[in-house]
Parts: sequence; structure tokens; C-alpha cells
Amino acid sequence: MAASLGFRGAASGLWYWSGRRRPVGSLAAVCSRSMASKTPVGFIGLGNMGNPMAKNLMKHGYPLILYDVFPDVCKEFKEAGEQVASSPAEVAEKADRIITMLPSSMNAVEVYSGANGILKKVKKGSLLIDSSTIDPSVSKELAKEVEKMGAVFMDAPVSGGVGAARSGNLTFMVGGVEDEFAAAQELLECMGSNVVYCGAVGTGQSAKICNNMLLAISMIGTAEAMNLGIRSGLDPKLLAKILNMSSGRCWSSDTYNPVPGVMHGVPSSNNYQGGFGTTLMAKDLGLAQDSATSTKTPILLGSLAHQIYRMMCSKGYSKKDFSSVFQYLREEEPF
Amino acid sequence: MAASLGFRGAASGLWYWSGRRRPVGSLAAVCSRSMASKTPVGFIGLGNMGNPMAKNLMKHGYPLILYDVFPDVCKEFKEAGEQVASSPAEVAEKADRIITMLPSSMNAVEVYSGANGILKKVKKGSLLIDSSTIDPSVSKELAKEVEKMGAVFMDAPVSGGVGAARSGNLTFMVGGVEDEFAAAQELLECMGSNVVYCGAVGTGQSAKICNNMLLAISMIGTAEAMNLGIRSGLDPKLLAKILNMSSGRCWSSDTYNPVPGVMHGVPSSNNYQGGFGTTLMAKDLGLAQDSATSTKTPILLGSLAHQIYRMMCSKGYSKKDFSSVFQYLREEEPF
Repeated sequence: MAASLGFRGAASGLWYWSGRRRPVGSLAAVCSRSMASKTPVGFIGLGNMGNPMAKNLMKHGYPLILYDVFPDVCKEFKEAGEQVASSPAEVAEKADRIITMLPSSMNAVEVYSGANGILKKVKKGSLLIDSSTIDPSVSKELAKEVEKMGAVFMDAPVSGGVGAARSGNLTFMVGGVEDEFAAAQELLECMGSNVVYCGAVGTGQSAKICNNMLLAISMIGTAEAMNLGIRSGLDPKLLAKILNMSSGRCWSSDTYNPVPGVMHGVPSSNNYQGGFGTTLMAKDLGLAQDSATSTKTPILLGSLAHQIYRMMCSKGYSKKDFSSVFQYLREEEPF
Repeated sequence: MAASLGFRGAASGLWYWSGRRRPVGSLAAVCSRSMASKTPVGFIGLGNMGNPMAKNLMKHGYPLILYDVFPDVCKEFKEAGEQVASSPAEVAEKADRIITMLPSSMNAVEVYSGANGILKKVKKGSLLIDSSTIDPSVSKELAKEVEKMGAVFMDAPVSGGVGAARSGNLTFMVGGVEDEFAAAQELLECMGSNVVYCGAVGTGQSAKICNNMLLAISMIGTAEAMNLGIRSGLDPKLLAKILNMSSGRCWSSDTYNPVPGVMHGVPSSNNYQGGFGTTLMAKDLGLAQDSATSTKTPILLGSLAHQIYRMMCSKGYSKKDFSSVFQYLREEEPF
């Protein structure tokens, strides 16, 4: 279904795209779930990303039912008057709209279909939005399980990192039943500046995976080009300016340059602290590799990028920002 | 010498950067060469790029002394009243400012130091600007030879392709003695919208090579990501929009998308005709490979990109635009 795209800016400057704008069909499926009122919203997974995302929902007046496998991270929310549940099942019992933000496919399967999972107590007509970055095929499986329970599952992974999560400027890539996009949008717009409908369930994950694979390839390419230029006698700032006004331009060169001192306010000028960890990039590239294998898609540079980030995880770069690939390439064995 | 950069826009909107703005030193070296008057300018190499570049010099009122190894390509200039020489040496006899635009390092060596080369008749104080894309080490060698003759050599390869050559919007990356940059700039601004001083001789070539290597890597990355997304059920136009608003954004995705139908006015929507040939990209990547080898710089993705474009040259893609890598990746053997 090639969605004919309407590109509209909501009054508050939030941009979203939607498929064909039809009035929400199958009202029966959603009327059991109150849309307008600020009924409680479940939020599961309060890590680096989930914590600021949940706070943005609070700022927009949504009472929360929270759960995290590490109870300590819920303390500040409890002190702020929010409800904390003892399991994902309990969250499903108390809320008919739930957002999950989990580290891996395995965690997602556990939270949804585990012994104390959402599916144990989910109510008919509930809307379950998973913003984790997981394997698209796992999203499709979970969607089938959820549908059997008369509820709706949408994948909505994010792009933008911790900074954008705090400022509420994430990009959400949403896959799922088009009639439910508006309901998801209402919540996601509290946490993001772009909410993009991508198509059937799983396509949100695919869009995220494709973006992060291209990001990894252009970051390594930028690091290689900058390193080659510096070793050929070029001033790094000058070379970055030339690339950024020429056909080599990319986000990694003009917004997140990996060479220390070329840009302020990016991890490369802060000893590669903060930002997006090498181990997370290696994880996303693993998802791209699986996706390419299952769809028989040749990804020569994508595969090599995966191996480079996997190697870096074994050389002490796991926790460093993924732009530290420049430092990795510069290492020289002393003669 | 880390040039402290002044970023100034000439009145006509032409932007250029220069190193420290000092009055032109060693006047003796240049006063034998008239700067202000429109004395004849030599132009050698009237191929796809050289032809429109020479015409832009004509439009700015410079009489030309022309030469090309294929006499036919000089006919239209002769009919327009320009002088055509019988050899590079004759051009050097009649003009003390010469621009060369040649296909390879070998051609450059022949034109400068061959039996009927420029160096046979070059006058003291002449300014020789080579806009070919060649090996930086060859540029450095030629510069030494030229210096022995009391003349000045600058490398000034271009970015922007045939379209920019016609419209006079090329980017020139200039390497050479800083005091001569102003003299080169006067001529190059007739053909380009950006004239960037990069440093010592050879750094112009290095900047071009680094840009084109990053361009090749991000084009292949874009082709792989778009192909993976399409095979995962995503609409190509939608995926391109998502990439272009996210961290995967690059010139190859937002300005020169390789997927037919995603953008108008680019080779991918014209059966990959025109644009920048695969064989030319393979040549530039060969220069990057040599440069990386001689500077002991690891270019994992750059090397693989070189092999991919080299392979494409043996599979019927030589004359197609380099964005045809998307088509190359999509080819399937019939089951």
C-alpha cells in the first residue's frame, strides 16, 4: 500500500505525515478506549531514553502507570505522585494505552508475552505502542499475539538520541494499522517533533534500521575521508567545510563531525562521552544484517560497517560514542 | 600551516576562502605577469568539462589560446574567433596564464613535460593552474619541475560536474603558494561559485579525492539502505523523506537519490544517463586508494567502494552515472 502522503504541520509546529486521511474507521475497535480525556497511560522501560520520554508525557498532563525491571529508576516518578506497577501485566490491567521502550527484542518478548507480561491482562481495544528498536519480524509476531487478544500493536522506534528525548524532539517511525495512527500520534507528539506513518506493522522498525545503517556507513566514511585528508596535509576544519559544501556532505560531517576540535557540542570534542554508544550501533547493525539476510538484500558496506563496530566493542570502545570510529582508525602501533 | 580562514563573499555573490589575507608578497615574481588586463589565457583540454569552462572564460572577456589533442573539439572556438595552438608548448609561448583540464595523471605529465609540453616554452613568472583530478604526488612533482623554470604551478581540481561547469558554479579546491591564490582566483571565479584555498600544492587534489571517496561511500550506503527498505515493505519516497530528516541524511539521499522515481532531474530518473560516470568514480577511488596506501591510512569502506565501482565497470555500467549502483545491487539472477 503506497500511502499517498499528506504533509501537514500541526499548529504547534509538530510535523507529521499520515496515510490517506480517512475518518477513523472501525470505531467499535477504538470507542472502548477513551481518546480525548487524559486517562492514565502505561509506560514500561525507564532507561536513558524512556525516562525523559515518560517525563514529557507527564508535562502534557497524562497520569502514568509505570514499570521497570529495576525498581530504583521508578522512585523519582513515585515521589512525583505517579503510580508504579509491580509488573507489565499490572500496567495492562490499569491502562488501555501503553508505551514500551526496551533495550532488545528479547526484552520486548518478555514484557509482552512473558509470565507477567502485558498479554496476561491486556483489555480489548487497548493500544500498545513499542518504541524499542527491535527486529521487525519480532514486531510482526507480537502484533499477531496482541491482535488475538482484541488489542492493537504498533511499532514506533525513534531517531534523535537522549538529547532529543529530553527536548521532546524525537522522530517516531510508526508501523501498524493506519486507522490507529491518529490515536498513537496524540501520545507520540508529546515526545516528538516528527511522527511519520510508515505502513504496515514492522515498517517503522525497518525505516529505523535503514536509517541507522546509512548513518553508520556515512560516519565511517567521514572518519576515513577526514583521516586521509589530515594525513595528506589538509587542515581538518577546512576539509570539513569543503566536504559540507560539496557532494560528500552528510549528517556525520556537517552536524556530528567525528574529528576532535572541528565542531563544538558533539561527543568528538568531549572525548566521545555521551551520545549514541558504539555497542548500541553494533546492535542496530546486527538488526540490519538479519533483515538483509531474511530479505536477500546485498549490503556490502552495511555488513563491513557491522563488523567494524563489532570489532570496536572488543577494543574498549563499547561505551564511547559511535563517532569514536575516527579514533579507532587513527590508532597506530608504536614502531 | 593551519590557515586562519576568512569567509568572504565577493560582490557578485561568489564565495571564496583564502588563507591569511596578506598583500601579495614577492611582487617581483608576479609583476612580469599582467594581472588586471584581459591578456590571453591558455586553456588545454576541451572535453566534457573543459569545453564549458573555457566558454565561461570567454564570456568574462578573456581571449583564449586553446589546444586539445583532438583538433575537432577546437573548431567551434576557432569559428568564434579564438586562437588555436598546435601544441601545449605553443600555448606556453603565447600565454603566461594557462589552465589545464585533463583526464589523467599520465595526460598531465605529457602536457606539462612531454616532447611538446608546456615546460618547453614556458615564460618566467607564468601561472599554471591544473584543474584535472590527478594523483597529488604527480601534482607535487610537476610543481617542482615548473618551479625550476621560474614559473608557478597550482592544483585546482573541481567538484560539481558538467552541469555546474556550464552554469559556472563549480567548486575549485586550490593548492599552491598562498601568494599566488589571488591571481588564480581572478580566473577561477569566472568558472566557479566557490574557490577554496586548501594549502600547499597537492592539497587541492587531496581535498577532491577525500570528497569523492566519501561521496562514493554514502552513495553505496544510500543504495543499500533504500534497497533494504523497499524489500522490507517501505515506500521508497517515504523512506527517502525519513532518511532526509534523520541522521542518515546525505547529498546522495537528499539531492541525487539513486532510486528511480524518488527525485526528478537526477540520472536515476533518466535511466542513469548523464551525470558522473561509474568509470570516472572508479578512477577517483583509485587515486584515493593510492593516496591511502602512501600515507598508511586505513580506508576499509573506501577500499570496498573502490572494488564495487571497479566491478561495475566490468558489468556494463562504465558509462552509466555512478548512482546506478542501486540498479547493480538490485540485479537478481532468475531462479
